[in-house]
Amino acid sequence: MKALVYHGPGKKSWEEKPKPLIKESTDAIVKILKTTICGTDLHIMKGDVPTVTDGRIIGHEGVGVIDEAGSAVTNFKKGDHVLISCITSCGKCEYCKKAMYSHCEKGGWILGNLIDGTQAEFVRIPYADNSLYLIPANADEEALVMLSDILPTGFECGVLNGQVKPGDTIAIVGAGPIGLAVLLTAQFYSPAEIIMIDQDDNRLNVAKTFGATHTINSANENAVEKVMSITNGKGVDAAIEAVGLPATFELCAAIVDAGGHIANIGVHGKSVTLHLETLWSKNITITTRLVDTVSTPMLFKNFQSHKLDPKKLITHHFKLDDIVKAYETFENAAKEKALKVILTN
Amino acid sequence: MKALVYHGPGKKSWEEKPKPLIKESTDAIVKILKTTICGTDLHIMKGDVPTVTDGRIIGHEGVGVIDEAGSAVTNFKKGDHVLISCITSCGKCEYCKKAMYSHCEKGGWILGNLIDGTQAEFVRIPYADNSLYLIPANADEEALVMLSDILPTGFECGVLNGQVKPGDTIAIVGAGPIGLAVLLTAQFYSPAEIIMIDQDDNRLNVAKTFGATHTINSANENAVEKVMSITNGKGVDAAIEAVGLPATFELCAAIVDAGGHIANIGVHGKSVTLHLETLWSKNITITTRLVDTVSTPMLFKNFQSHKLDPKKLITHHFKLDDIVKAYETFENAAKEKALKVILTN
Amino acid sequence: MKALVYHGPGKKSWEEKPKPLIKESTDAIVKILKTTICGTDLHIMKGDVPTVTDGRIIGHEGVGVIDEAGSAVTNFKKGDHVLISCITSCGKCEYCKKAMYSHCEKGGWILGNLIDGTQAEFVRIPYADNSLYLIPANADEEALVMLSDILPTGFECGVLNGQVKPGDTIAIVGAGPIGLAVLLTAQFYSPAEIIMIDQDDNRLNVAKTFGATHTINSANENAVEKVMSITNGKGVDAAIEAVGLPATFELCAAIVDAGGHIANIGVHGKSVTLHLETLWSKNITITTRLVDTVSTPMLFKNFQSHKLDPKKLITHHFKLDDIVKAYETFENAAKEKALKVILTN
Amino acid sequence: MKALVYHGPGKKSWEEKPKPLIKESTDAIVKILKTTICGTDLHIMKGDVPTVTDGRIIGHEGVGVIDEAGSAVTNFKKGDHVLISCITSCGKCEYCKKAMYSHCEKGGWILGNLIDGTQAEFVRIPYADNSLYLIPANADEEALVMLSDILPTGFECGVLNGQVKPGDTIAIVGAGPIGLAVLLTAQFYSPAEIIMIDQDDNRLNVAKTFGATHTINSANENAVEKVMSITNGKGVDAAIEAVGLPATFELCAAIVDAGGHIANIGVHGKSVTLHLETLWSKNITITTRLVDTVSTPMLFKNFQSHKLDPKKLITHHFKLDDIVKAYETFENAAKEKALKVILTN
Repeated sequence: MKALVYHGPGKKSWEEKPKPLIKESTDAIVKILKTTICGTDLHIMKGDVPTVTDGRIIGHEGVGVIDEAGSAVTNFKKGDHVLISCITSCGKCEYCKKAMYSHCEKGGWILGNLIDGTQAEFVRIPYADNSLYLIPANADEEALVMLSDILPTGFECGVLNGQVKPGDTIAIVGAGPIGLAVLLTAQFYSPAEIIMIDQDDNRLNVAKTFGATHTINSANENAVEKVMSITNGKGVDAAIEAVGLPATFELCAAIVDAGGHIANIGVHGKSVTLHLETLWSKNITITTRLVDTVSTPMLFKNFQSHKLDPKKLITHHFKLDDIVKAYETFENAAKEKALKVILTN
Repeated sequence: MKALVYHGPGKKSWEEKPKPLIKESTDAIVKILKTTICGTDLHIMKGDVPTVTDGRIIGHEGVGVIDEAGSAVTNFKKGDHVLISCITSCGKCEYCKKAMYSHCEKGGWILGNLIDGTQAEFVRIPYADNSLYLIPANADEEALVMLSDILPTGFECGVLNGQVKPGDTIAIVGAGPIGLAVLLTAQFYSPAEIIMIDQDDNRLNVAKTFGATHTINSANENAVEKVMSITNGKGVDAAIEAVGLPATFELCAAIVDAGGHIANIGVHGKSVTLHLETLWSKNITITTRLVDTVSTPMLFKNFQSHKLDPKKLITHHFKLDDIVKAYETFENAAKEKALKVILTN
Repeated sequence: MKALVYHGPGKKSWEEKPKPLIKESTDAIVKILKTTICGTDLHIMKGDVPTVTDGRIIGHEGVGVIDEAGSAVTNFKKGDHVLISCITSCGKCEYCKKAMYSHCEKGGWILGNLIDGTQAEFVRIPYADNSLYLIPANADEEALVMLSDILPTGFECGVLNGQVKPGDTIAIVGAGPIGLAVLLTAQFYSPAEIIMIDQDDNRLNVAKTFGATHTINSANENAVEKVMSITNGKGVDAAIEAVGLPATFELCAAIVDAGGHIANIGVHGKSVTLHLETLWSKNITITTRLVDTVSTPMLFKNFQSHKLDPKKLITHHFKLDDIVKAYETFENAAKEKALKVILTN
Repeated sequence: MKALVYHGPGKKSWEEKPKPLIKESTDAIVKILKTTICGTDLHIMKGDVPTVTDGRIIGHEGVGVIDEAGSAVTNFKKGDHVLISCITSCGKCEYCKKAMYSHCEKGGWILGNLIDGTQAEFVRIPYADNSLYLIPANADEEALVMLSDILPTGFECGVLNGQVKPGDTIAIVGAGPIGLAVLLTAQFYSPAEIIMIDQDDNRLNVAKTFGATHTINSANENAVEKVMSITNGKGVDAAIEAVGLPATFELCAAIVDAGGHIANIGVHGKSVTLHLETLWSKNITITTRLVDTVSTPMLFKNFQSHKLDPKKLITHHFKLDDIVKAYETFENAAKEKALKVILTN
């Protein structure tokens, strides 16, 4: 089969690889129908993720069809269409029993990281019963690719951890795909005001059409001052970090109201400064999280009932064969006005 | 001043009464601008509420303007426009400190019950600082009358207690004003499916325009069977009782899924049968509640940011002087297609 | 092997049965070391549980040693000592993923009910990885038998659902083994006052030594009046029903304070009357639950650190061969002053 | 009257000051019976708290008797014995209604800070109804002084925010009075293991007698390694910071398990480094909090029912007249083996 293979920093190729085989009775082999590229994949390609080694097929998102199910798989059979979760869950370790699949002792984020991933014609999915979701007939499978990672990540790490609730004023720092996924799913809880902060006017304009009530271009405006002006000097109930830089985290800490939440989503490469000399008495909560994908069934239901339109996040389409070109587009997201790309096998 | 006075079962009159005076330093006198009639007022008029005695001015909803503020009132001054909460809260008893204002040792539901109420030109509001809410300039005061009672009641007793959450399938039994208030505010939490059950086709049609995804006329259809068909035999995550009869409560118990919630709002006059012989092992939760109005500030924020449109509930308008006629209309709600009426002073 | 077999109402025998075999790769065969008898087993023997049919080996509690593990079992191997949960969990259905194992689509309470149980020399445990717990060397295995059912039941259905918290005043209605399990585990949350209500002075005396601060013999005293006197007329924060009769449920409803919780544990054979005509405005919560055994790991930890002494519940010891005699003792619990019996293989 | 007055860094005197008078109808004047010294008072004396200015009477803890109650005070009358909360709550601002009294718009921590405090013969308490608690006859008033600040602070900022629950393994960093208050109140939730970390062997020995299951002297041992060894390499469920230094905060971050909580109590003078480059994916929660004293009624109940023994924290007694000597002892806490001192008027 063909697959996108990482060969060290800056080197990837769309090349022939052996089709994966069942290794454990709980595995399934899935033929990929549609997949996408994640910001994390770009980090991998730069060599920023040391757990990914030369020869690895990357990718951790997608929908497909069961090609073969291991003998202990009971939820799925050959021919079933399935959504692939970016997080693999064994369903029987201490962390899985606590619904913290991100830290599954045998799974977690392994696809396209510790084992071969989804940017390929076929992929082996361990613990298939707990790591795949059945897609009913007639569902829009392109839209469902957004449920592999980006929507549960935005929802769990941003919205749930930010404890967004009706009437809240929230700020989302970063209007890339993840920030926009937060924006879409935060509205499940009907906050009164949603302030979107970014440095790219195009993305801020997109945010407005997605439901942001205020936008701030922090390249041109003092974001702290503007947030304080919008909130009558109080700050926000939840500040959601969707970038991964010290400056954006510290911006969140500067705009959160007493009693508020800072929900970190960003993948950080450096430490940040936490101003406990002022924050110690502010009754704030800071959270970090690798997505657990516990919200996937809920997202599926709200997608089915038209309460969530994941396709809004999709800007470009490619054949899977053209994945190298798709990477180029995604790497130049600002110029290409790209959010998420869909690769069809 | 003029006021609507209860004179025993079936007897009321719009008559001259003395203007109320400040009794405690924490009182305020409010000139009524707009008020409405509650289903509870109809019960009072029938003699169903023994705490209401001959001579009482009834009514517990409304907006007005501060005519006089007691010396210990600090949140309001003469001329401020205010929303009157149906629940009076002293702010300093054990229950108020637990945010259970409904059971305030000195307040609770006393307006138009134990003390004179709002269907009058003026009303005395005890513990004004904790029982009134400031209305900003330019707010739509007619809409805000819906925040005195019906919207917090639907939201707190139905939505909060029913623990409605994104992805849920819920049923609301009763499509009167309270059931419709549940319908409007349940959508703050983006349930996937909302089933509205009533016996009045007009109200079910209204429910559809308010966001119900399914309606069942239980006069013509077997409601249990139809709910089970919609939910693949599972039942609903939350069944919300907005009528107050044994049959409607027992319907809720028959349609709730394992792990689900029955949230009672209805004012019951009789006991009901609880089938613990089947329910004991179903992991269900049943709640009762007199509204606490703790959600009023949130409702206010979502009203201001256009996430909630209370005016949808208003079908008729009268001058306060015509309140007797307004009662006639409200008493014939089905025929008049009446939900809430607005009385303007 | 030898096993206790149900042969219709009133008929049981300790007889030879075939040793169970692995049926699915996720099964384990466990050699029983110690087991016990549950109140539910007495109901079964009377014919009250129609799902139990002639020929069934009963029992759903115990500790044992892995005799054989199916090929897909990864958490256990031959020779491991294990605690058997009364609830079987597949770990991969909708309910298991919500931690509601009681309603597992393929498991739940099936041991000694729909499949052969633990009152035998060997038992087959489906979904062994999710339904057994490893016992470390040197642990007191007799004490651990109390973690199969009675302690998680008391804790989850009574204490967790009753939302017992520091400072609370709670009442436990029924001082049998389940009520006493509530009493032991309620103290994990340090309620200020614990009122134990029963009609057996011996059990009430036991309750005092277990930590009850007040006891009421409802055969001799007016329980409602006494609770009201203890609580200054307010009632209790949580009333926990551990009997299963209309009278005891209705007692709970009569003694709960506004804002309080009624947590039902009892297995009811009849419906009860719920006085919504007074309760509708009391802001109460009523819960039902079949134990999920989600608390087993926590109970294990607190047992290991000596925060919980399950052996207090054990009053009698028998050889497994003498199980018929053990039933006689347990059936005459009041006369024998029996709480839980231990049967050793 | 006599009072302890701050006169700039390093300067204090026990001197004559005018007896306070009622300023608002919601005030009460309280004659101090017993008070104590807080670690914060030492910071004030060093000049570390810029809001405290020359001439201020300090102190924010104590019990007393109502000398005069303002006309709007309804919960107390002259002669009532009362516990003084360190936090003043108006009961009617947005934050008080959210039970976040620490950020009360007119109160919060003002006693002995923005207004005169309790280290005096009399003190004026604003919003007396919401800021005092009635002491019943025969209660041990010396013990109750510990409920003014140190016990609610340890409980709310450490135990509640750390979400300590049955079965948890927790670490408390700092075995001073606050850390020991955490230790006493953490046991309300029955954690399995409590690891106490400090550099003073005497305090660690005290911690053992208070219920710590492990102690680590971080002056002699590698605390991270030892915690990891105790927890099988996992880390703790909650790490509670009770010192206020970068090193102790960063120790907490180094020992918390995935999914765990870092609850900051310490008053920090400097920023800390937060290692988001490793923590971003660990699903942790960090909280800060100025005590709200919402738990005071619960602490009172558990004290009354002997579930909490505050007197364990008291090591020294002085006459109020000898307060300068008491400061000397408290300033040399390690040498004097001092925890809390009681000053009697």
